[in-house]
Amino acid sequence: MAMMDPSLQGITTIFFDFMGTCLDWHTGVTASFPDRIPLSTRTQLSLAWRESFFADIHSRFEKGLPPEDIDRTHARLLAQLLEHEFGDWSLSEAEQAAAVRSWHAMRAWPDISMTLQHLRAKYEVYVVANGTTRLQVDLARSSNLHFDMLFSSQLLGLTKPDPNFYLRALDLVAARPHETLMVAAHAYDLRAAKDVGFKTVYIQRETEDLSESMDQVKRDVHFFVDGRDGSTSCGLAGVAALLGVELEDKLPV
Amino acid sequence: MAMMDPSLQGITTIFFDFMGTCLDWHTGVTASFPDRIPLSTRTQLSLAWRESFFADIHSRFEKGLPPEDIDRTHARLLAQLLEHEFGDWSLSEAEQAAAVRSWHAMRAWPDISMTLQHLRAKYEVYVVANGTTRLQVDLARSSNLHFDMLFSSQLLGLTKPDPNFYLRALDLVAARPHETLMVAAHAYDLRAAKDVGFKTVYIQRETEDLSESMDQVKRDVHFFVDGRDGSTSCGLAGVAALLGVELEDKLPV
Repeated sequence: MAMMDPSLQGITTIFFDFMGTCLDWHTGVTASFPDRIPLSTRTQLSLAWRESFFADIHSRFEKGLPPEDIDRTHARLLAQLLEHEFGDWSLSEAEQAAAVRSWHAMRAWPDISMTLQHLRAKYEVYVVANGTTRLQVDLARSSNLHFDMLFSSQLLGLTKPDPNFYLRALDLVAARPHETLMVAAHAYDLRAAKDVGFKTVYIQRETEDLSESMDQVKRDVHFFVDGRDGSTSCGLAGVAALLGVELEDKLPV
Repeated sequence: MAMMDPSLQGITTIFFDFMGTCLDWHTGVTASFPDRIPLSTRTQLSLAWRESFFADIHSRFEKGLPPEDIDRTHARLLAQLLEHEFGDWSLSEAEQAAAVRSWHAMRAWPDISMTLQHLRAKYEVYVVANGTTRLQVDLARSSNLHFDMLFSSQLLGLTKPDPNFYLRALDLVAARPHETLMVAAHAYDLRAAKDVGFKTVYIQRETEDLSESMDQVKRDVHFFVDGRDGSTSCGLAGVAALLGVELEDKLPV
């Protein structure tokens, strides 16, 4: 019989970051590049693309710029990487467009697919993520994940880690900060969520926060779980254990 | 083998009105009033409450007032009805609060429950309705209906039949008017959706549009289906037939 961590008593609502936290974007994006590029280079290119995306988001946020359509950001950053850091490789316009499109169809990490329905039977589950609503709908459909609502930066007109992003989503679902658990694989996101009064749990992923010190992250969040082994018993299953939710074989209807 | 109506070729997206179109609010609200009131009076009271809600929404819209929290509107209108039209009956504050809360938990009409999953396998399905996001989440959870997104007037800061409500939702899901079918049990809603270029289908319900002429409604919308008999083969099943979607016994996963 699993026991809830006492500090999570009273949680009714779980906010999820989406792309890196719930979805294996890396496999899909790496596979979208042409085969003539060696796999190790494709792997590096997709990781560099993702890192440059976060740098761009943060830079825009610090300059007070409005959210940009994520497809446009991805296209611009890929072109820059191919011109500079990955100058040995060139991709046609059609190949670049296919890579940009690949961000719209992702499989869920195995631990998310297995566990989210169990959590949804007891908690309200929401996506709270930078990006467009179109992207979020495509990702929810392709990954076959069912959340109660999808809140994008485009929809709210705000960008994480702006505290107003979290507070606006909270207001729309009429929950209070201390009733809400934020689940993410990005320390910057959880630091902001903690500052507005949420409980926070970090899921470590192979593909995210590559330049963060995990020792520091462990000090900065309430809970830390390892989500790197790609099995159904890591990551979100660890969050379920903290909440005392049993993961029976049979999913609730 | 069902055939799609030729004029619906190219439809990718279905917008649904929620409360009266998808949900049997009348049974739940009528049951929320105390037993000491005769059933026929409770039935009339819930219908009058709903009619006064629409009159209030339209009046606010025409005055250019911002959307009001639907719980607040319901509470105010119920108090007015009990003071005037239903002056023979008084409800305690707790009884009135319970009646207001009853709007947050509804069962789906049988035709919606059976058919929505079939449609969602082929089309994107969205709620586009006046109300709060909190209400929409409660209704989606209690009715166990799964839409790709819930767009409330609160979320968009707009009220139907403002054409910008439909256009803003369309923009967020990157669909075009002629690719979109609006399904509603309210003529005012479909007239506005048709004006922005949507295809429109009216589902007639026992509980909605009691003061509309159905002959006029039939002239004003593209398609009209009867959804009054409470079976799984009426209403949305008729919409599925127009779209050429077969309703097999086994639901898609």
